[in-house]
Amino acid sequence: MSVIADASLTRFGKREETLLDLACESAVPLVKKYSQDIDFIIVSNAYSGEYNDVSGLNNLISTRLSLDDVPSIRVDNTSGSGGSSIMVADSLIRSSSARNVLVIGAEKMTGFPTKRSTRIIASLLQPEERSSGMSLPSLGAFMARSYLSEFGAPREAIARVAVKNHHNGSLNPYAQFQSEISLEEVMNSKIIADPLRIYEYCPISDGAVSLLLVPDENAKSFSSSGAAITGTGYSSSTSSISSRKSITTLDCVKRSSEMALRYGKITNNDVDVAELHDMTSVLEIIESEDAGFFRKGEGWKAVMNGDTDIGGTVPINTSGGLNSKGHPIGASGVAQAAEIYQQLSGKAEKRQVQNAHYGFSLSMAGFGNSATAIVYEGLS
Amino acid sequence: MSVIADASLTRFGKREETLLDLACESAVPLVKKYSQDIDFIIVSNAYSGEYNDVSGLNNLISTRLSLDDVPSIRVDNTSGSGGSSIMVADSLIRSSSARNVLVIGAEKMTGFPTKRSTRIIASLLQPEERSSGMSLPSLGAFMARSYLSEFGAPREAIARVAVKNHHNGSLNPYAQFQSEISLEEVMNSKIIADPLRIYEYCPISDGAVSLLLVPDENAKSFSSSGAAITGTGYSSSTSSISSRKSITTLDCVKRSSEMALRYGKITNNDVDVAELHDMTSVLEIIESEDAGFFRKGEGWKAVMNGDTDIGGTVPINTSGGLNSKGHPIGASGVAQAAEIYQQLSGKAEKRQVQNAHYGFSLSMAGFGNSATAIVYEGLS
Repeated sequence: MSVIADASLTRFGKREETLLDLACESAVPLVKKYSQDIDFIIVSNAYSGEYNDVSGLNNLISTRLSLDDVPSIRVDNTSGSGGSSIMVADSLIRSSSARNVLVIGAEKMTGFPTKRSTRIIASLLQPEERSSGMSLPSLGAFMARSYLSEFGAPREAIARVAVKNHHNGSLNPYAQFQSEISLEEVMNSKIIADPLRIYEYCPISDGAVSLLLVPDENAKSFSSSGAAITGTGYSSSTSSISSRKSITTLDCVKRSSEMALRYGKITNNDVDVAELHDMTSVLEIIESEDAGFFRKGEGWKAVMNGDTDIGGTVPINTSGGLNSKGHPIGASGVAQAAEIYQQLSGKAEKRQVQNAHYGFSLSMAGFGNSATAIVYEGLS
Repeated sequence: MSVIADASLTRFGKREETLLDLACESAVPLVKKYSQDIDFIIVSNAYSGEYNDVSGLNNLISTRLSLDDVPSIRVDNTSGSGGSSIMVADSLIRSSSARNVLVIGAEKMTGFPTKRSTRIIASLLQPEERSSGMSLPSLGAFMARSYLSEFGAPREAIARVAVKNHHNGSLNPYAQFQSEISLEEVMNSKIIADPLRIYEYCPISDGAVSLLLVPDENAKSFSSSGAAITGTGYSSSTSSISSRKSITTLDCVKRSSEMALRYGKITNNDVDVAELHDMTSVLEIIESEDAGFFRKGEGWKAVMNGDTDIGGTVPINTSGGLNSKGHPIGASGVAQAAEIYQQLSGKAEKRQVQNAHYGFSLSMAGFGNSATAIVYEGLS
């Protein structure tokens, strides 16, 4: 078993620094404390070549951090890179291939026109679907329409996800957006892909997050608190979205969540705080159902009831989620783990969920193309 | 411990097919045999975005192979991606995170002008050194000059690496170049970066290789032969090449080789066949010293004596190496393992090293920026 012993984040948003600068900004506080202990570096990043004209990012980072000898790799699984990187780090530790792993999630995506950025991300779609003009925002809209009609949910329920996550973001000093928004503001904002509006989509973001993962038997020598990774689950679905049986169910989310909970030896009811992949508002609702927190078709009620608020029965995206915290692609899944680490260590300040002991995160690639679920247990 | 139970290659070279086509061409023979057994896919690829305008390659591949549910990641470490991917696959198996892993190395790099291709690869250099106009070919020339003057080696010794590797390539049906060349042809060929000539550099290549890795306790249920991975070693060096103490020693090669041999519980003398990273001819000589096969400054003598020929005391790059087999970046390290698998399983046909039992491969990133060494033992 491995334990997240420490975490460090940059503020997410539109940043002037380079990708390499941001990655190192997040890592330096950990390197200062643990440089002698780190014996492997995993860089979670998907698009350094496309956005930043950089390759071999992991090696450039280790050099900049003066960790010249420390071996490193880049792990990519598009938006799900963070979850995959943590899963690999955990496996390296459990197989004794590495002792203490520095996981750095980093991406710098601003600076390009939105259209070009959307085109880069669309390069993950099936070639046939991509050439038909599909994009991730349009798929979100299709999912929202299907969900509303299939389950008779009110349109406002989906928008309320954005209201909640902007509220949570307003409590997170690392979030890209730190202002609350009202339901009216969401519903009157610019349409991106009908019926979804701009406040319901994650922004284009820069940012980085670093974690130190250590073997559980040594965890106490690093810190009295921490988040043990007690279960990981991972699965994929076809990337041919038009060939899926349902657009309102994400099979890989179901399978990966079941697997992580089984290994973690807990049930959904035990989870005190969860981070989901809300690239767009409706995804949070669908995932909250497929991860097993609510019955299919009833996730929207939980949002309306406040069950997913900080203080609710299952607080979801206390960090602000991708929606408000921002979504630097390779960093997002690592940031989810950082949020859970902070919550389970009692370090989440204004966002703190009381008595949080078990955490859950779901890092997703593409549009349900692949998912990594992680179950965490607080050490203290 | 994990075992390479099967391997499948495409021919390397200038190929008309897409990256996705090539990856699947190499994988299909294994998927046909083992589709029910594969529970994780690692794609070794560095430049799908830069060369092929594709992201999420691992997920596109699993869909094309009808392995929809099978989780996957992309592992990148530039030219060393293959060694890193195998190291991760081995760790996933040893930690029971996965049972049987399909490792697919694939890259498609032709179709761009050489200048643009060199520029893409140069994106792995330190920003300061890159802006000074350094490139990997020019670093090779600098290394060759330094080696010749430091150790009094004759210029021909370096060229003989290309003669040997083209001979080996002529025996390999998957190699990009399958024709022998003479010493005179090498020495009279076009200068790329003085003193090195075109036949001494690997070509720009397309190609893919797939391996099935399984836990050793199950290996016999897949095949009576195979190559057990008994030791892996990995290390990095600064990517700031001008700040290294010596240009004729690759520290990460020394450290990774020592580590792999230690875990594999053998010495250099036990190795029957080795694949090294001969991006340019002089690198093979330097690595053969730093990996410990010859004393520093004496690797050139081994080439002149024929010690590194098939039939010599330490056959090196029996596949033809990057020099003749080709160097599709993400595929190369995986192809090294495929060659060792074939040699240790008695399947190397015209290239077969007699009584080969222990193998060694060295997959390297950048210009000694990072290295993964692997020690193998034949099962049969």
